[in-house]
Amino acid sequence: MRSDTNRCWRLASRPVGLIKDSDFTFGEEPIPVPKDGQILVRTLYLSVDPTQRIWLDRDSYMPAVPIGDVVRAGGIGKVVRSNSPAFAPGDLVQGLLGWQDYAVLAVGDGALLPATKLPPGLAPELALSVFGVTGLTAYFGLLDIGRVKEGETVVVSGAAGATGMMVGQIARLKGCRAIGIAGGPEKCAWLTGELGFDAAIDYRSENVEARLGELCPSGIDVYFDNVGGAILDAALAHLAMRGRVVLCGSIGDYNAAEAPAGPRNYLSLLIQRGRMEGFIVSDYFDRLDQAVSDLGGWVSSGKIKNRVDVQEGLEKAPATLNRLFTSANVGKQLLKVADP
Amino acid sequence: MRSDTNRCWRLASRPVGLIKDSDFTFGEEPIPVPKDGQILVRTLYLSVDPTQRIWLDRDSYMPAVPIGDVVRAGGIGKVVRSNSPAFAPGDLVQGLLGWQDYAVLAVGDGALLPATKLPPGLAPELALSVFGVTGLTAYFGLLDIGRVKEGETVVVSGAAGATGMMVGQIARLKGCRAIGIAGGPEKCAWLTGELGFDAAIDYRSENVEARLGELCPSGIDVYFDNVGGAILDAALAHLAMRGRVVLCGSIGDYNAAEAPAGPRNYLSLLIQRGRMEGFIVSDYFDRLDQAVSDLGGWVSSGKIKNRVDVQEGLEKAPATLNRLFTSANVGKQLLKVADP
Repeated sequence: MRSDTNRCWRLASRPVGLIKDSDFTFGEEPIPVPKDGQILVRTLYLSVDPTQRIWLDRDSYMPAVPIGDVVRAGGIGKVVRSNSPAFAPGDLVQGLLGWQDYAVLAVGDGALLPATKLPPGLAPELALSVFGVTGLTAYFGLLDIGRVKEGETVVVSGAAGATGMMVGQIARLKGCRAIGIAGGPEKCAWLTGELGFDAAIDYRSENVEARLGELCPSGIDVYFDNVGGAILDAALAHLAMRGRVVLCGSIGDYNAAEAPAGPRNYLSLLIQRGRMEGFIVSDYFDRLDQAVSDLGGWVSSGKIKNRVDVQEGLEKAPATLNRLFTSANVGKQLLKVADP
Repeated sequence: MRSDTNRCWRLASRPVGLIKDSDFTFGEEPIPVPKDGQILVRTLYLSVDPTQRIWLDRDSYMPAVPIGDVVRAGGIGKVVRSNSPAFAPGDLVQGLLGWQDYAVLAVGDGALLPATKLPPGLAPELALSVFGVTGLTAYFGLLDIGRVKEGETVVVSGAAGATGMMVGQIARLKGCRAIGIAGGPEKCAWLTGELGFDAAIDYRSENVEARLGELCPSGIDVYFDNVGGAILDAALAHLAMRGRVVLCGSIGDYNAAEAPAGPRNYLSLLIQRGRMEGFIVSDYFDRLDQAVSDLGGWVSSGKIKNRVDVQEGLEKAPATLNRLFTSANVGKQLLKVADP
């Protein structure tokens, strides 16, 4: 690439199913110019999250990306020009950079989603995983929505993904049994070996509902759902009395053209006096300090292990997002755009 | 009938769809004899509740009625013979009498579901409706699971039924807007006229989802679900931020041969940070005093109106249960078996 242009992916049409490069335009544009109070940031890493697929074709908790706009994505970059006294060139910042080499970001209290400076010494890979939306989603979802108690059985789907791997580890830290559902023997072995999950179910080769019945003879106290679909139904079928279903996402449905079938077994909530509840991690940002403090302590002491799956090159952005939906990633999916 | 025999309905086979007389045997048997500590009760009124259909063909929060057993149903009767010092002939008692003229009931602390004496002066119709499982279900479901707050919008389906009519009225008492969904113009007129609901939707002639959108421009804060199916989906589509879905039942599904489709719109719970929770009223029996005191006050002061739909004759038991599923009843369905 030329250093005086900004490569960027703009949304050309609403994707159907797995995204294709042709759903976007990938062009070179002039590097944008920051206005007063704004900063110009060179993208280093992009966070790759399932929710980004939702943003491409429907309004949800955020409006859909308008056709013609740069694809929305969070990431970490380096300030190259600052029109704000609070930022200096060279600072590492986190914000909604988008699929592009350079972004102009708003900063300060007036901004809707202001860029924030990375704490000194925090590696971008860690900031975008354990301390990023996926780690925080695991933390608040399991503790606040799931309200796990010592001795309970926690099941998490998408367990080898960025959020799932954290859910199981935090559950173990809280004295729970942790059972992960993931695709393929390698992921399952990693969950029970490296990460200390009590058990793992390979949804590709095993009957998830039957295995849940074997592994959870007293039922599932907390099911943390990242995938929806048949696995949600299997978990509902084994819900313990007063069990909780934490709705985090339904990755199996994000590429579906129409609304997926609902969970047929939802009446387990009635029989078992269960609760199914959704949440969006941004609602918890006023309690960020507590989460970061806990997570920081667990990471520093080695009680929680992190794993990132780094692809390289902005030109691979669509293909990298698809990795989430083909179950290709292990750990937090990142896209490295430039060297720090 | 001869006065020395006990007519009783016994389950002959698992019903499919709406029950038929031929799913049962209706015969005359000797009047049962109470053992020590038991009482013999003449059935006066039987409570007719949707959950009784569930008991006929599947295990749920209670085991299914075994083939050959008398059909399970709560009711009120008069003690005709007592082998317990706590009961005397002539006492009115409430308990699981079943579809029969005479029942032997266990009493006292040792019994699993002991018969209880009616408070003096309490009419059986009131004991089985406002103060029965349906009234208590409305009370605890709306207040404890729904956690309604003043100014909120409450929508209830099956609104002209025993539980639904109470939900709307209690919601109004708590300063909420109450919208009922019921079948037919007469029921809807009764809800908004006599009972003071703010609005009613006739699901037979109106587009429920469109009407909910019109009537709830800020969304539904609490949806109390008695019916499941498409109406649950319509309500989910209009859930307000932090809305709650109280799962009380799914009357539309109880006669279905297989598990119904789940709610396609369940991901509203995620986007709206909503909660869907089930409950069984018997879990709240330790707080009966509080509920009875509140409900008693509201009924005495005319703030809550009651309505019962009384059919007569034990021979009509199956047909009367079906009335719930053909939307024939208005208010609490009862079956009168004998004069008090």
